[in-house]
Amino acid sequence: MLAVTFDLKGWSTERLERVEEALSSWIPADTPASLGLAMRYAVLDGGKRLRPLLVLGASEAVGGNADAALRAACAVELIHAYSLVHDDMPCMDNDVLRRGKPTVHVAYGEATALLAGDALQALAFELLAPEGVGIPDRTQATLCRLLAMAAGHAGMAGGQAIDLAAVGKSLTESELRQMHRLKTGALLQASVMMGVACGEAGAQASAGLANYGRAMGLAFQVVDDILDVTADSATLGKTAGKDAAQEKPTYVSLLGLPRARAYAVELLEQALDALATTGLPDTRALLALAEMVVHRDN
Amino acid sequence: MLAVTFDLKGWSTERLERVEEALSSWIPADTPASLGLAMRYAVLDGGKRLRPLLVLGASEAVGGNADAALRAACAVELIHAYSLVHDDMPCMDNDVLRRGKPTVHVAYGEATALLAGDALQALAFELLAPEGVGIPDRTQATLCRLLAMAAGHAGMAGGQAIDLAAVGKSLTESELRQMHRLKTGALLQASVMMGVACGEAGAQASAGLANYGRAMGLAFQVVDDILDVTADSATLGKTAGKDAAQEKPTYVSLLGLPRARAYAVELLEQALDALATTGLPDTRALLALAEMVVHRDN
Repeated sequence: MLAVTFDLKGWSTERLERVEEALSSWIPADTPASLGLAMRYAVLDGGKRLRPLLVLGASEAVGGNADAALRAACAVELIHAYSLVHDDMPCMDNDVLRRGKPTVHVAYGEATALLAGDALQALAFELLAPEGVGIPDRTQATLCRLLAMAAGHAGMAGGQAIDLAAVGKSLTESELRQMHRLKTGALLQASVMMGVACGEAGAQASAGLANYGRAMGLAFQVVDDILDVTADSATLGKTAGKDAAQEKPTYVSLLGLPRARAYAVELLEQALDALATTGLPDTRALLALAEMVVHRDN
Repeated sequence: MLAVTFDLKGWSTERLERVEEALSSWIPADTPASLGLAMRYAVLDGGKRLRPLLVLGASEAVGGNADAALRAACAVELIHAYSLVHDDMPCMDNDVLRRGKPTVHVAYGEATALLAGDALQALAFELLAPEGVGIPDRTQATLCRLLAMAAGHAGMAGGQAIDLAAVGKSLTESELRQMHRLKTGALLQASVMMGVACGEAGAQASAGLANYGRAMGLAFQVVDDILDVTADSATLGKTAGKDAAQEKPTYVSLLGLPRARAYAVELLEQALDALATTGLPDTRALLALAEMVVHRDN
């Protein structure tokens, strides 16, 4: 397997420096009241940045426009960050700890948290459609389309609605998979496809990367469910055991721990197989990211 | 004045039928849980639809692409509707009546209201960037840019943050104007400019319509402040006297009622003057809309 020879840490570090710098420059500090501060608090200095890395890895694999990819990487992270801010609010999960810090509504109040989440979503689309920086209109429009569909009712928000309705109920494996395909899978897959949209990939490469993104998205959630029961809060940087406490259906509650682990490995294999079908010369970063997702401990 | 010969009611009715039909077809009913129902409840069968009419009026004035304009009209209304859903929530204005109906969080619960607002914002951008319906990429990208900037931290969300921080404080007229330029003005002006972006207006027409939009946006808010103290809840379809009860600064609290009324009329004149500078052959609908905004009673 090639992945062992690929320096994922070095590759990621260099790219994350660019992402952090871009996020810091694009999220305003000087907005009215504490809105900008709350937006920055919600996004900066935290998170694994998996989605930005998927965007950049996919864009590099297809020789994409680097400026467009950096914007797409930041945009998808803003959507992810806003969803966490809203998800943590008292009327949703009512969580007080995130990435090892008090959640945004604890730090800035509920009203500001609500507005900061809303403004982060708008900023994501603003980043994707800049004027006069040379990103082709076609790329801008495609990126907006992919992100909007992944974030909305047929994607992340739809998945959260299923999640909300499922508390205390039992779901079948197929219902659980559908929930996760929307709730976390859609944005993870969109990260890959937004990277692809920064270049000019052929149909075969696109289809392979779409399959990679789909398997990766599901694998991420299965591992999340496993970590919720096997890791402690300090390692996770968020409240562990939350799903069980809230009687939320998870892959672990449905399959048991050993079968959930086996399923994660099976999804990793699917993701790697999909990469092999792309015919692209260098997909090592995407391969290493998939392995990292399945073997991570937080 | 030409406006008296223009049939605004007939013009609006025909366009609003198209907008209502489009909104109804584009906001899904069959999303997970009650998300789609809450989205539809928040948007359909209510509201003056001023923003869609501004988009369509501006697009027609510049000979814009009708399909693009219909999408832009619906998108801007979705942003407006989501902002009302979130604004009404207990952690913000805690309002129970909107457009004569219980607010979304009263009808569907807070968590679903939060998600429905989020999904409506995403849907707005989804409508602006459709695949394969023949709207030029350049138009799509421009529409996304204008809407994102008007909705975000430097627009509507920023204005709401100032509003939030201003409760119980006294603002100068210049601070109050800045708050409203962002909170309601940005989206109203963007409605006009999104209509312009559906066509190919010259610099003179664009500048004139931008000035029209700016004056209109401010006039709208001044009149809103006047109606908050002069109209009753039944006429308004929302809770009257709310601003005074919450000690929010308004044009009425700052200027007094007679001067606020005079200011609204002055802004109307500015809007009409700006239209006259565009050099466009037919701006009657925009002219009539400006008069309607200032002379409305709800």
